[in-house]
Amino acid sequence: MAEFLTQGVFSLNNPAFLKGFAAVAGTKEGEGALGSHFDRIVEDSHFGRKTWEQAESQFQLEAVRIAAQKACVTADDIDVICSGDLINQCIGSTYGLRELGVPFLGIYGACSTMAEGLAIASLLLDGGGFNTAAAVTSSHFSTAERQFRAPLSYGGQRTPTSQWTATAAGAAILGEGGNCAITGGCIGKIADMGISDITNMGSAMAPAAADTIFRYLSATSTSPSDYDRIITGDLGLVGSRLLLEIMDKQGIDLSAVHCDCGVMLYDIDAQDVHCGGSGCGCSASVLCGYFLPEMAEGKFNRLLFIATGALMSPMSLQQGESIPSVAHLVEIRRFQ
Amino acid sequence: MAEFLTQGVFSLNNPAFLKGFAAVAGTKEGEGALGSHFDRIVEDSHFGRKTWEQAESQFQLEAVRIAAQKACVTADDIDVICSGDLINQCIGSTYGLRELGVPFLGIYGACSTMAEGLAIASLLLDGGGFNTAAAVTSSHFSTAERQFRAPLSYGGQRTPTSQWTATAAGAAILGEGGNCAITGGCIGKIADMGISDITNMGSAMAPAAADTIFRYLSATSTSPSDYDRIITGDLGLVGSRLLLEIMDKQGIDLSAVHCDCGVMLYDIDAQDVHCGGSGCGCSASVLCGYFLPEMAEGKFNRLLFIATGALMSPMSLQQGESIPSVAHLVEIRRFQ
Repeated sequence: MAEFLTQGVFSLNNPAFLKGFAAVAGTKEGEGALGSHFDRIVEDSHFGRKTWEQAESQFQLEAVRIAAQKACVTADDIDVICSGDLINQCIGSTYGLRELGVPFLGIYGACSTMAEGLAIASLLLDGGGFNTAAAVTSSHFSTAERQFRAPLSYGGQRTPTSQWTATAAGAAILGEGGNCAITGGCIGKIADMGISDITNMGSAMAPAAADTIFRYLSATSTSPSDYDRIITGDLGLVGSRLLLEIMDKQGIDLSAVHCDCGVMLYDIDAQDVHCGGSGCGCSASVLCGYFLPEMAEGKFNRLLFIATGALMSPMSLQQGESIPSVAHLVEIRRFQ
Repeated sequence: MAEFLTQGVFSLNNPAFLKGFAAVAGTKEGEGALGSHFDRIVEDSHFGRKTWEQAESQFQLEAVRIAAQKACVTADDIDVICSGDLINQCIGSTYGLRELGVPFLGIYGACSTMAEGLAIASLLLDGGGFNTAAAVTSSHFSTAERQFRAPLSYGGQRTPTSQWTATAAGAAILGEGGNCAITGGCIGKIADMGISDITNMGSAMAPAAADTIFRYLSATSTSPSDYDRIITGDLGLVGSRLLLEIMDKQGIDLSAVHCDCGVMLYDIDAQDVHCGGSGCGCSASVLCGYFLPEMAEGKFNRLLFIATGALMSPMSLQQGESIPSVAHLVEIRRFQ
């Protein structure tokens, strides 16, 4: 039974073990700083399908398949799967997972999806009713560009603050097994500081990350030095700097333990990705491909994973709105 | 602690009481068969805002406000809110609820959203960590038409199997209080029978509803006669007939207790809505505006609420895909 610490912050009494996890990534991500850590690199941006949207569905399905294999479970063993993505109506998820025949909870948290899925899945397991749950998400550079910005063939120039949507998926199977487990978390509140620049999403999302981290540290009476890493999803270079500044003003120095999946995914200088990676698949693949395997082997004992999402749409920006954001957090610990 | 009956089917040991609920609807819905039951009819389709998308956000916020007022809670009392809608990136929800400052779980289940939100909220409460949760969703005829079909000014002719997207929102506050409670439910699996006609969504969704109802009745060893009503979301006239046929072939006769929110919402013959209502707000407003108040007053003792969602997008259909669907179910009982 989860203990309730303060609004939206929870502590699980039954840790939700991450018994299997996998990351599948595209060519560019495979050539990045973490390329050697992914379970599979898919060189064909269409993944053998006719459209990029169908390809993204394949990335998601493949991540679930590998994670389930590593967890020694079949689809029939999974009681519920939490999934979403960035494409309109989340078709990356719905078409990708339909063949599994697993009870499906569609979620929408933009790039916060992996943390949202892990939070819901761990809470459902802690409730006692479900034995095995899964969380998965994906993004694809080509589906996101044409939907949120412009057709690729338009060849628009990218601004210095822009980020590169990762072609990647990450999946985790939760239940009994393994030595890493979610022990608590924080459900994010929507933050909106009035930023409306779609090419500077890191800055729009940083306040949400700061609010969620601050609420979790306060509720649990912990400080950054209690954690090996405090990992944000895809704030990129600009958003990460802003996060450290905001936290610093609240008297919390994150600099020694903070890292950002968007900054880590690529070789930023060599790969022309400006401020780093973004997209649901960015933090999902870095968590499931790098942090969880390294933690399982003993490199880390206690992590905070905070994925951030920008909750606008192209239409809302055309209508003059600013960018609301959200950040969900899960704490992950290593057990001996 | 929820008891696990079979894959995706749950039974709560701590009923999640529906302590406040509200429905807000547009003019056409106010003139329909259930018009007198709604908490508020908003005659201005823009709800005082500049765009229909902003109006939909207002509908959702207003439904939460009235439901919270009836439940005697403030936003600060709500531990988590589960919300989603049909507009790309769920902006009806994210912009509508951002000012509340409540921990926010974005969900995407298309027209199954109200049942999905109620299922998640009730499971989180049952887990023991959260005291008060909310579920809300909305739809708006004008935002849905231009996004899923054609601009309104195009004036396209509607086919006989089409349904009318409801301009409405429904919200429920769950916690301690009131005399109606969710006692169990079933998380839907994605079903896809190959239908690709976007003007016949009832038929695309009926198999998902049948699968979910069948799984729940089997797992709980109950039959239709154990319930006062088995309420589907928005199958409309054609989808409802198909549901009864599918169930009949499995030896289950739903005809005595089945009703459909899409069929109930309008005066179908007089209001030119062809097969009935649809949209997330259809089942949400009929549940929160009609069924729950009538149940609280003693008219019903045991209900099954099954909202169905079509999980395609305009782009997936352009790419030649069929329509995957899902149906989530919650059981609601009246306590003395």
